[in-house]
Parts: sequence; C-alpha cells; structure tokens
Amino acid sequence: MNFYKKLAQHHRKLSKLSHLNAICSWDQASMMPEGGNEARSEALAELAVMQHELATAPHLKEWFEKAEAEQLDNEQRVSLKEMKREWQMNTLLPAELVESQSLAGSKCEHAWRSQRHENDWHSFSKNLKEVVELSRHEAQIRAEATGLSRYDALLDIYEPGMTTKQLDRIFNDVKSWLPSLIRQVQEKQATEDVITPVGPFPIEQQKSLSLEVMSKLGFDFNHGRLDVSIHPFCGGVSTDVRITTRYDEADFTSALLGVIHETGHARYEQGLPAKWRGLPAGEARSMGIHESQSLFFEMQLSRSKAFLDILAPLASDAFSRRDDAALTSENLALFNTRVTPDYIRVDADEVTYPAHIILRYEIERDLVEGHIEVEDIPELWDKKMTEYLGLTTRCNHTDGCMQDIHWTDGSFGYFPSYTIGAMYAAQFMAAMRREMNIENLIHARNLSPIFNWLDRHIWKKASTVSTDQLLIEATGEKLNPEYFKQHLIDRYLK
Amino acid sequence: MNFYKKLAQHHRKLSKLSHLNAICSWDQASMMPEGGNEARSEALAELAVMQHELATAPHLKEWFEKAEAEQLDNEQRVSLKEMKREWQMNTLLPAELVESQSLAGSKCEHAWRSQRHENDWHSFSKNLKEVVELSRHEAQIRAEATGLSRYDALLDIYEPGMTTKQLDRIFNDVKSWLPSLIRQVQEKQATEDVITPVGPFPIEQQKSLSLEVMSKLGFDFNHGRLDVSIHPFCGGVSTDVRITTRYDEADFTSALLGVIHETGHARYEQGLPAKWRGLPAGEARSMGIHESQSLFFEMQLSRSKAFLDILAPLASDAFSRRDDAALTSENLALFNTRVTPDYIRVDADEVTYPAHIILRYEIERDLVEGHIEVEDIPELWDKKMTEYLGLTTRCNHTDGCMQDIHWTDGSFGYFPSYTIGAMYAAQFMAAMRREMNIENLIHARNLSPIFNWLDRHIWKKASTVSTDQLLIEATGEKLNPEYFKQHLIDRYLK
Repeated sequence: MNFYKKLAQHHRKLSKLSHLNAICSWDQASMMPEGGNEARSEALAELAVMQHELATAPHLKEWFEKAEAEQLDNEQRVSLKEMKREWQMNTLLPAELVESQSLAGSKCEHAWRSQRHENDWHSFSKNLKEVVELSRHEAQIRAEATGLSRYDALLDIYEPGMTTKQLDRIFNDVKSWLPSLIRQVQEKQATEDVITPVGPFPIEQQKSLSLEVMSKLGFDFNHGRLDVSIHPFCGGVSTDVRITTRYDEADFTSALLGVIHETGHARYEQGLPAKWRGLPAGEARSMGIHESQSLFFEMQLSRSKAFLDILAPLASDAFSRRDDAALTSENLALFNTRVTPDYIRVDADEVTYPAHIILRYEIERDLVEGHIEVEDIPELWDKKMTEYLGLTTRCNHTDGCMQDIHWTDGSFGYFPSYTIGAMYAAQFMAAMRREMNIENLIHARNLSPIFNWLDRHIWKKASTVSTDQLLIEATGEKLNPEYFKQHLIDRYLK
Repeated sequence: MNFYKKLAQHHRKLSKLSHLNAICSWDQASMMPEGGNEARSEALAELAVMQHELATAPHLKEWFEKAEAEQLDNEQRVSLKEMKREWQMNTLLPAELVESQSLAGSKCEHAWRSQRHENDWHSFSKNLKEVVELSRHEAQIRAEATGLSRYDALLDIYEPGMTTKQLDRIFNDVKSWLPSLIRQVQEKQATEDVITPVGPFPIEQQKSLSLEVMSKLGFDFNHGRLDVSIHPFCGGVSTDVRITTRYDEADFTSALLGVIHETGHARYEQGLPAKWRGLPAGEARSMGIHESQSLFFEMQLSRSKAFLDILAPLASDAFSRRDDAALTSENLALFNTRVTPDYIRVDADEVTYPAHIILRYEIERDLVEGHIEVEDIPELWDKKMTEYLGLTTRCNHTDGCMQDIHWTDGSFGYFPSYTIGAMYAAQFMAAMRREMNIENLIHARNLSPIFNWLDRHIWKKASTVSTDQLLIEATGEKLNPEYFKQHLIDRYLK
C-alpha cells in the first residue's frame, strides 16, 4: 500500500496550499483594500503555479501505476480513483496556460468591477476575449484528452458525467413549459395582495438577524464566519468556512435569503467527513450537488410557509416591528415567492431563474465550441432575454451580459450547475418527504431530522460515490427533472 | 547581468510566498475562529517548509558567485549584497537545528503561558535552558561565519552592523544618568494635578477615533486596514498593511496610542519604494529603524503638547465629552507623560523603558556568551531592577524574568532594538527641527512636511544604504544617544 499512502500524503500537502489560496482569496474579496489587488493577484498567481507544479509532478504517473497494482480495500480504491481524476484534470494543462489564465482572470475581474458600473462593454470585451481565448485553448486540450466535445470537457470539471446532450434535452424540455408557466404564475399572482416591506432596515440589525438564522440552521461558528463582499460567496476551508453577504438597507430579504443560501453551502462543507480531509474523495461531489444544498436551504426550506412561520417573528423582533403587516409569515410567503421576469440573475426568483441559466448555457456552449465570438454576446443576450423573459437588454450591458462575475475568470461550464442543483434539491426534498413529514418537523422547531438526512445521504458521502450513485442511494433514481417542475407547480400554481 | 536577474526573480518569488504567509497569519490572529487553528497551523507550517526550501536551494551558491562576477551598476551591487546577506542568514543553520529550535521554542512558549501565571520559574527554567543551548549553538555557527562574537552575531540578525561594544558604550552612558533623571522627573511630577480619564469609552467610538487619527497621520487606507487582535501588531505586506489593536472600554489612551504606534510602522511599510518591491534592498532597514518610526509617531509626535492640541478635541468629540476636564490637551499631555518605575516592560513609560531594555540586554548578552547560566537570571534580574528602577523582583518571577515572550522562542538580540529605535527617533526629530518648526506645522495642521522628511530620508531608502549611512544622510552623524537624553530632559524636566 506504499504508493497509495504516498499519493495520499501528496494530496494532503496540496490541500494545504489550497487552504492558503482559499483564505487569501476570501480576504481579497471581503477584506483587502483596493490598492492591495495587484500584489495579491501576483502572489495568488505564483501560488497557483506552485499548486500546479505539485499537482503535476512527473513522478506521479509512476506512483499512480504502482498504486493501482497494490492491494487496496474498496475505500482506498475509490479514493485512488478520485485522486487520479484530479491528477488527470491537472496534468492536462501546461503551466504557462494556467498562469496566463490566472493573470487574465484577475485583470478581467478587477477591471469588470468598475467597467460594469460604467456599462463599458467595449473595454470589458477586450479583457474577456483574452479570457475566452485561453478557455478555448484549455477546452481543446481537455477535449483531446477525454474524447469529449470542447464544452463538455469544461462541464466535466464542475459536474462530472454531465454532458451537452443531457443538458440540451433537459433545458429544451424546460424551455417548452417554462415561458407559459411564468405567464400562468404571473396571472395568478396579479390578484394577490402583497405588501412590500419598507426600509430602512439597519445593517447592524440585519447582521444580527442573519447570525441568528445561521445558528438555527446549524452553522458552526467555531468553524466559520459571516462577512461582507460585493458578490456573496461561500469560501474558506471545511474547518473554517467563510460565507459572505451584501446588505441593502432598503430590503432585508435579499441579504437574509442570500445568507441562508450560503449557509446551505457552508453546512455541506462543514459536514464533509473528517476522515477524508485533505483527499479528493473527501471533497464536495460536484458544483451541482453543492448548489443543491444551498438551494435546498434557500428554496425548498426557507421559502416554505412552514419555515416562514419561524423566520417572520425573528425578523419582526430583529427590526422591532412587531406590528408591521409586511413582516407576517403570510405576507413574507407571498413576497418571497413573487415571480417577475427581470434582468439580474442573482436577484431572480425561483421560477424565472432557469431562463437566465439556459440563456447563459446556450451562449457559453457556443462560445467555447467556437460557433460564436465575444462580439456576438450582447446581441444574443438581448435576443434570448426577449424570447425567454420578454425583456430587452439592448445598450444595457450593466444589466445584461456584464452582470455576472463567472466569465471574467473563465469559469465556462459552471452556470448549468445552478439549475441542475435546483433540480437535485427538489428531488432530495421529494425523497425526504417519503420518509418524514417536513411541515410537522418545522412546526415543532425540530430541524435536526432534515439536516441529518442531508448529512447522511450527501455531506458524509462527499466524493466517495458518483453523482448518479449518490442520487440513486438518496432518492432511488438518477436525476429526474420532473420533481423540479412539480415543485414549481405545487408552490406557484396551487 | 544574467545571474543577478535570476536572483532577483527568485527573491520576488520568495516575497510572494511571504505575502501569502503574512495575510494568512494576520487572518489567524484577527479573523479566524478557534476551530480553524489546527488546519491553519498545518497549512502555514507547510508553507514555511516551502519558503525555506526555496530560500536555501543548492543552486543559489553558484548563482551568487556568478552574479558577483557580473558587470553591475551601483544599485544592483547594493541589491545583490542584501540578497546575499539574506541567503547567508538562511543557509547558515542546519535544518535539524532550525527544527529543534522551533520545537523547543513552541514547547517553552506554550508552557510559559501557564508557568508565568503560576510564578513557576523552576519548571520554566528547564525549558528555557534547552532554548538557550540551541541559541548558543546558533550563535556559535553565526559567529564562525561572520567573525563576530556570539552575541553580536545574533544582534546582527535584527540590527545589522550593531555591536556589543557600541551598545555597552551607549547603555553604560544611559545608566550613568537615567536613575537620577527618573528621580528628578518623579519629584517634579509629584506636584502635578493629573486627572485620569474615566470610562466607559465605547469600543465603536474608540474605533472611529482611531480611524480618524490614522487618517490625520497619513495612513493610506487604500493600502491597509485596522482590525482587532489579542496582541496588537503591524502585519500584511507593504501594498496592504494590516495593523491591529485591542480596545479597553476603561481606557481609550492605550488603544489610541497603540494604534498611533502601529501607524508609524505602517507608514514605513507603505512608504517603501515600489521600485524595489519584492527584493531585500526594498525592505525595512532594521528592527531598530522600524521601531524608530513607530516611536517617532507615538512618542516624538503624538505625546507632544502641540499634537495633543489636535488629538484632545478629536477624542472629546468622539466620546461626546466636550466638558470632560480629563480630555483637555493640557491634562492628556500630563496623563500621557507620567513616569512611574514599574515591573512590566510593555506598560512602561518613555523614561523608564530604557532601564527595562538595558537590564535584558546585559543578561541576554552574558547568557549567549556563556558568562552566566539560566539559573543566574532571577538574581541578576532582581539586582538590576533594584539598581535601575528601585524595585525588587525577589520571588516574583511573574513580573520579573518571566514577563516577556521573546526569550521563550530564542529571540536573543532583539531587545536592544526598542531603545536603539527610541534613540534614532529622537535623533531624526532633532535633525528635522533644524529644517522646520515642528510646533508651527502641527498647529497649522500641516503634517505633510514632517512625513515627507521621513519618506525621503528613511522610507524611500529602505535597505539600499547601511544604517550608519542612513543616519548620516538624514542627520549628519551616526547614532548619537545625546539627542534621546536631551529629548527626555526637554519633555520631562522643563
């Protein structure tokens, strides 16, 4: 078992470098003053090179061959398989490409922060073209090695096993019913009386409320923090998970539901098995599964009427507004499930969200495959927004193709995970409902059985089984998008 | 110039790893939840090993030999000299010694935390003996390589060029006048009416005041932050300086003057020349020069009556106490210059502080040279405290020789920097006074000429000249302790 052990030790070392990267990246987004960016980006680029060199050390090929010939038990074999997948992913790319990508990504993202504000597509597109060219280069290399198409090869980084073929089928189906569903929901909601909570909601009180809700959702503050960043995320390491949010004095629900979303990510990370710490088998299964956890917390759980019966009194207490009719659970249930086609993905409701994803998926797929160019994006964006959501983004890049951070660092292939994650989440909830009465548990303030189910079926499995296997073991079947459709119908049309 | 360039590139890479180390260490002290400590310590230990391997790579010897034979201009020659000094410092010690020192230091420091509290010299001395033996071994290796005495070889790490001969002369002079000066100051101050400011001073208001004062002192918030940690420090990197403080609701002056002290360190770091960034020639000249900047800000500037005329109204505004007689500039001037011989160095005033340093210097010098043994320390400490400050520490190790953290990890040779720094600061101020009227500038709220002088004469020079040369260029002469003596007389006896 000598070479398996050597490989495990090697990966634990790699995970320590990832630790440094995660903390310095979190700091860059949430703590670092603007003027520190250049040197930080250079330091992180250097680290990325060292991580890459270590991950692709020439002797590893022999170590893997020898380890595969060793007597290993089942767990070790699974662990070896994941280490090898990671190694293959990493060895594919030349070090110069990785460094160029890191630098181009930092440059593009940093400039985007002001360019987006200034609606400056012209300047942004120059940086983005550099990023796209490097990503195409990456995709080409990955495609040749895996036999997948260029875009599928990128998709495989985030959602192992997922393909364009499967996504096209799923998303074409969604496109066949979503626009009419959106119209039906809007018609139904047109008759509803909803009171919009009116601010100001002081930031300090929003923060206290966020921390209280995180506690109720089981976030472990001995192994994590809540801070502020422009683009909320879940970062850090599993022993020290850093989630961020962005407060708006006019609207407390956006930060609160954002925090609940990130808490879902955080609990997955905090719940990963200590036994496998530092090894690929101990990491989150995929981006889609990760998103399924955040969406389980945000959509399945926290937007339910039952959970809002807990949340509403906490909110009215936090803001000392016990008589505010906008803060009753009934009103918050209506308010938090309003469906309105709009420009911004991160602000989109549960029903229109898939349209934003499908739009991005179709554009990035064609961009990576070389069917379209960066110059084509604004027009395509406008066309698809009009088709899917009835909104034009002509001349409005700020709220159009410049709204997201993802493409700035070349994360092509990532967007589909959001909607795949929503589908997994609906499927998990449906499976859970077959075992327990969710509403009764929430009313009894007894959330543990829900979290324990997730812990047992998802968090503690980490990457020791494939996504398909994880779905089958947890729900009895592979990904089945019908649960998501049914969830939308149940929540929005009944 | 090929090998000089290679060496410069190598050092820039090293400085990027230092960057990651600095940010993750700052995070560990100021942000990280307790539960993250184990994984963080492991990640930082891994990074330290990588830094050491890189800094001592076997090919560097040849690179230095070849670079020294290259045609270099003056600046490059200076830069090469500093790179070589750093390399020699790093390669001198065998890896086993470094590891033994790290282990013995950790053990001694960890046990010291409770042993100090329990006044347990007996147990502490056993660990300290191990640390001292290893430091003597280190000193011996450094002495052989440099031709210096054993203690001078350690001194040279922190204060290049400083020697026991020079320190003995300086400190013996101080000992000849300091005890009687302290008595005179005490007699004078016995007749003064001083009002102690009475809390609570809310932390949020202290923080606002600290940030405002940092602004007035030119701290660049585009390249730095203020946060909280148990032990205040100045960390981060020169493009992103992280200073920390610790607030006490009962006493706002300790945090405020601490922040001003760290702001002095920070402005030195922020003012280092961008041209030399990442190279040893671009780093701070020495620990003594670094301390001279913090003490210039804290002692020379902020404890002056003129500056307190700015500070006092800021403080009374910050705490909404415009009628508090304790917060007038007259009272704060008296309060902040009280002189009282006491046991604890870190709490000592400007006048008694050198006595604490001289005592430690004399003991650690003789300890490293082998003239005394660990067993002799308590008696010597008591004798010298009695002689210099009129206080006995017999049987009181907690407030005697066990009060500092420095010796626990073998930082022998560091203590003198504190008082040398105070002397440099007084000499800088005296030179500055020959060029401008400091009080008039402060009264006119025009501090720029003061900071510009420091920037030009100290910050921008970094390590491109020796300490002696820096002093000569800035003040016309080498270190002359007379300025410090005169400063104490002017401030405390006139």
